[in-house]
Amino acid sequence: MSEQIQLIPGNSLITETPEEGRLLAVKMARLNIKFTQPDAAVRERLRPIYAEDAAMLIAIGQVVAIEFATIAAANDYWN
Amino acid sequence: MSEQIQLIPGNSLITETPEEGRLLAVKMARLNIKFTQPDAAVRERLRPIYAEDAAMLIAIGQVVAIEFATIAAANDYWN
Amino acid sequence: MSEQIQLIPGNSLITETPEEGRLLAVKMARLNIKFTQPDAAVRERLRPIYAEDAAMLIAIGQVVAIEFATIAAANDYWN
Amino acid sequence: MSEQIQLIPGNSLITETPEEGRLLAVKMARLNIKFTQPDAAVRERLRPIYAEDAAMLIAIGQVVAIEFATIAAANDYWN
Amino acid sequence: MSEQIQLIPGNSLITETPEEGRLLAVKMARLNIKFTQPDAAVRERLRPIYAEDAAMLIAIGQVVAIEFATIAAANDYWN
Amino acid sequence: MSEQIQLIPGNSLITETPEEGRLLAVKMARLNIKFTQPDAAVRERLRPIYAEDAAMLIAIGQVVAIEFATIAAANDYWN
Repeated sequence: MSEQIQLIPGNSLITETPEEGRLLAVKMARLNIKFTQPDAAVRERLRPIYAEDAAMLIAIGQVVAIEFATIAAANDYWN
Repeated sequence: MSEQIQLIPGNSLITETPEEGRLLAVKMARLNIKFTQPDAAVRERLRPIYAEDAAMLIAIGQVVAIEFATIAAANDYWN
Repeated sequence: MSEQIQLIPGNSLITETPEEGRLLAVKMARLNIKFTQPDAAVRERLRPIYAEDAAMLIAIGQVVAIEFATIAAANDYWN
Repeated sequence: MSEQIQLIPGNSLITETPEEGRLLAVKMARLNIKFTQPDAAVRERLRPIYAEDAAMLIAIGQVVAIEFATIAAANDYWN
Repeated sequence: MSEQIQLIPGNSLITETPEEGRLLAVKMARLNIKFTQPDAAVRERLRPIYAEDAAMLIAIGQVVAIEFATIAAANDYWN
Repeated sequence: MSEQIQLIPGNSLITETPEEGRLLAVKMARLNIKFTQPDAAVRERLRPIYAEDAAMLIAIGQVVAIEFATIAAANDYWN
């Protein structure tokens, strides 16, 4: 597995807004999968599988929710 | 995947009441799925699948519970 | 999906006791499922499925545990 | 579903030791399942199913871990 | 189910190092399964099933991660 | 199961940057699986199974997200 993929864009959990924090959560979740499966061809083959499977879409939603919880805490909930 | 979908309505985690916070949790969970699967026709096709499947309804409940935990902390539990 | 269902009874996470907090966690988990599947007939049809399936009972237990974590924090663990 | 089952023994999250806190976590997880499935005969029928299924034993472990996290926080980690 | 199994070795969440805390997390996860399934013969029969199943190994990893989060907080992250 | 595998590289949760913290989360998740399944040949056999299975890649992502939450808190979110 490649160790060269950047896992956290900008190397920071701090964002200006909740919306940007949510986008970061999505990106971190995706980069994590890229890190485990660095072969773009395999990932492309898997995309229609999870994107049209209700259970997997829900599972992706759960991962993003967990990533977002960390990012939100890092930003003191943008208060 | 479209980057134009708004992920957090109002770009804020702050709500006036717990009930509004819970609604925000539901919306954030749904917008996240929309972001991963932007094709409305596919989402419509998936709706009866998860809405009539006990295991998926429970899984959706778990995602909303996690989103709500973050929103509740952001609002200092509305205390 | 109906937006009229109340998601948090009493619109508050504060309860007098841990036992009441646990009941609120159960109710919030159930109302969430009701919100996603507002058709009572479908929910009635699903009930014997999850109530007699060990894996689903465990999954419901996990959702309630997550809801309860938030409620317990909101009540400062009733200390 | 019966509303008479006690969900939290002693109506408190406070225990003298971590070991007792862990036992409370196990009990809370079990009482939650009892609440959803109050029929003892059904629960007895399900017991050998989950107790001899590796995936379900792991899932039960996850629920207890989440309950315990809340109880540990309530007890300030017994420090 | 036996109530005599010790669930937390040493009856404490405090460890000297993160490594020891991680080992405690693993042990707590295993003792929890032992508590639910006290029959050693059944557990031995299940071991090759989960140890050679990718999905179950990942699920075990998730339980340990949750236990470790609690232990790390109890030790103030060994700071 | 071998007790000699190091579970936390460097025996510390502290890292200089979020990126390094994320890498630590990935390593901790992997070492945990190595601890449960110390046979390298079995792990090699499982790798193509999970690396080409969308649901398992998502599940791995969830474990890393949970490990990272703990590491991020340990580092005060690198603030």
